[in-house]
Amino acid sequence: MTDHRIYNFNAGPAALPLPVLKQIQSEFLNFAGSGMSVTEISHRSSYFDAVIDDAVARAKRLLKVGDDWHVLFIQGGASMQFAMIPMNFLKDGEHADLINTGTWSAKAMKESQIQNTPYTMVASSEDKDFSYIPKDIKFSADAKFVHITSNNTIKGTQFYNFPETDGIPLVADMSSDIYSRPLPMDKFGMIYAGAQKNLGPSGCCMVLVKKDFLETANPKLPSMLAYKTYAEKNSMYNTPPCFGVYTIGLVLKWIEEDMGGLEKMQEYNIKKADVLYDFIDDSNFYRTTAEKDSRSLMNVTFRLPSEDLEKEFIAKATAQGLGGLKGHRSVGGCRASIYNATTMESMSALVAFMASFAKEKSS
Amino acid sequence: MTDHRIYNFNAGPAALPLPVLKQIQSEFLNFAGSGMSVTEISHRSSYFDAVIDDAVARAKRLLKVGDDWHVLFIQGGASMQFAMIPMNFLKDGEHADLINTGTWSAKAMKESQIQNTPYTMVASSEDKDFSYIPKDIKFSADAKFVHITSNNTIKGTQFYNFPETDGIPLVADMSSDIYSRPLPMDKFGMIYAGAQKNLGPSGCCMVLVKKDFLETANPKLPSMLAYKTYAEKNSMYNTPPCFGVYTIGLVLKWIEEDMGGLEKMQEYNIKKADVLYDFIDDSNFYRTTAEKDSRSLMNVTFRLPSEDLEKEFIAKATAQGLGGLKGHRSVGGCRASIYNATTMESMSALVAFMASFAKEKSS
Repeated sequence: MTDHRIYNFNAGPAALPLPVLKQIQSEFLNFAGSGMSVTEISHRSSYFDAVIDDAVARAKRLLKVGDDWHVLFIQGGASMQFAMIPMNFLKDGEHADLINTGTWSAKAMKESQIQNTPYTMVASSEDKDFSYIPKDIKFSADAKFVHITSNNTIKGTQFYNFPETDGIPLVADMSSDIYSRPLPMDKFGMIYAGAQKNLGPSGCCMVLVKKDFLETANPKLPSMLAYKTYAEKNSMYNTPPCFGVYTIGLVLKWIEEDMGGLEKMQEYNIKKADVLYDFIDDSNFYRTTAEKDSRSLMNVTFRLPSEDLEKEFIAKATAQGLGGLKGHRSVGGCRASIYNATTMESMSALVAFMASFAKEKSS
Repeated sequence: MTDHRIYNFNAGPAALPLPVLKQIQSEFLNFAGSGMSVTEISHRSSYFDAVIDDAVARAKRLLKVGDDWHVLFIQGGASMQFAMIPMNFLKDGEHADLINTGTWSAKAMKESQIQNTPYTMVASSEDKDFSYIPKDIKFSADAKFVHITSNNTIKGTQFYNFPETDGIPLVADMSSDIYSRPLPMDKFGMIYAGAQKNLGPSGCCMVLVKKDFLETANPKLPSMLAYKTYAEKNSMYNTPPCFGVYTIGLVLKWIEEDMGGLEKMQEYNIKKADVLYDFIDDSNFYRTTAEKDSRSLMNVTFRLPSEDLEKEFIAKATAQGLGGLKGHRSVGGCRASIYNATTMESMSALVAFMASFAKEKSS
């Protein structure tokens, strides 16, 4: 029973690399020879300093950024970021733009409105049920930043090319595709991601913020809501989410050393997604919901000929050890989330199952 | 090497019960037969529903509270609570009292000041370097609540009897003694605790809030900063810190089933502390820093005849497998943190070491 593992297509929390899970398990009672679990070591110890410093260094190296960026670990998930961003970056008279690509953008918008600093929605794909990524957008000339959601987990869309903003920094919620590909970091003021999709367990949000952008932040905020507090204390003003930081560090190490960095990670992610999209495109039974040029490499959303068939498909898949294929509860349908840790073996198993199910139902 | 475990007297993150750590390790690749790690299961699954519902039920049962209380899991530690409490509970014209027993009270005070709703400090033990718990306090007649820190980790003091407030609800930071003893819950409006001392890993703060007290909260706040958001969604408005909730649940189960509940837990904690305090009181070499009637059962702070001896004591202890005995960096000296999970075996090992060190240095 202990060794039984399913093919996990959960949207988040999601599959983590098996070698990382095995390492956590093997050293769980005695981390780095300390005689303590990683959950029992002090965050003020040399043991934890090594953990967080390594995670930060890898985070920067993978994205090829230098000392002009901070890497922060903050609690509360991307949802807390939705509140912290306007609070920190929109002072009196300042405003920002937002591109609406679905649920998560709407949540970011809502938190900006609660604080009476509403974003200006300069583009939206709501007209076609968020099935595409808007292009050729005109931004407000005086926008301080532009907020985007780089990948929409629910509708299965993803920005391939980031918008041309003529120098206005992008602030991007990358919860579902961070560290899945190289990024043009000079376009961003800040990127952030709840860890529980591509990076680690839930409960730890990773934030990369450019130093000159951080300089513009509101100086008077509750300590735990100010990015500066985290930047000044290497994310240890108070006790950080140690287990999360540790696991993220191991996942970043896996990306860097086992997978070969972000270019290779991206190649692998494209190959994995192609297997599934090619199969669906060739099929008369399944169809994708996102437009071809906006399809996510992380969340493949698809439909079957009827809701009854979808229900049966998900139940049968689950019974055969393929988990997490149900679409988000707000839209229904099916979804395979295939983040970094999803293996090609999982993809093959999924496509084989889909082929056999379609054959059974079409004959 | 894997089995090597030290005697861990860390102040937090701190020792966790060994049976809990072993269970986490044994099921880490396959939680409850799911074929997934507990870090990989969806928070919207029946697996996680069972985890959080069990943790909430045990949390209530142990403290003998019913449906008039909410149990919430919030990220950001007690430090985030310092900000959220005035934000939620002090609307225009409302104010609250605070008893100052040291560093953590001061931090709570600071966050109330940042938000222009400063607490009224009605008592303080600063006159004697926070070595005691103030008594016979006069509270503001119109205080909405009284904020206290039930146990001070740095100075080693603890409230045994909670203040008589004539019906004003107490709001208590119990980060370092929650679930270490039964509580007179009718005196409280809210109690909260970062998990990393008595409950689990860092990155998850447990909040118990009384429903009628919560009713008085500010209705218009960023979603993640409003207690109501958590109360309405069973702490799952967004992805909760799943690994933390899971571990807390296992620790609460251990308290309830292995230790026999909070009365028994308290008896055990008193016995453990007595071993150490009795030894120190009999010694001419060691001395405690807290006044006798305010001594903490969780953090025993003590000094040696000189700082040089303290340095040597800590180094030798570490070398002999007794970790975490250094006092907080702000006060120096020595400290043994002996939370729920610290065993009587650890206490015996500590006292034996202290006796031998004193003998060596006194001869």
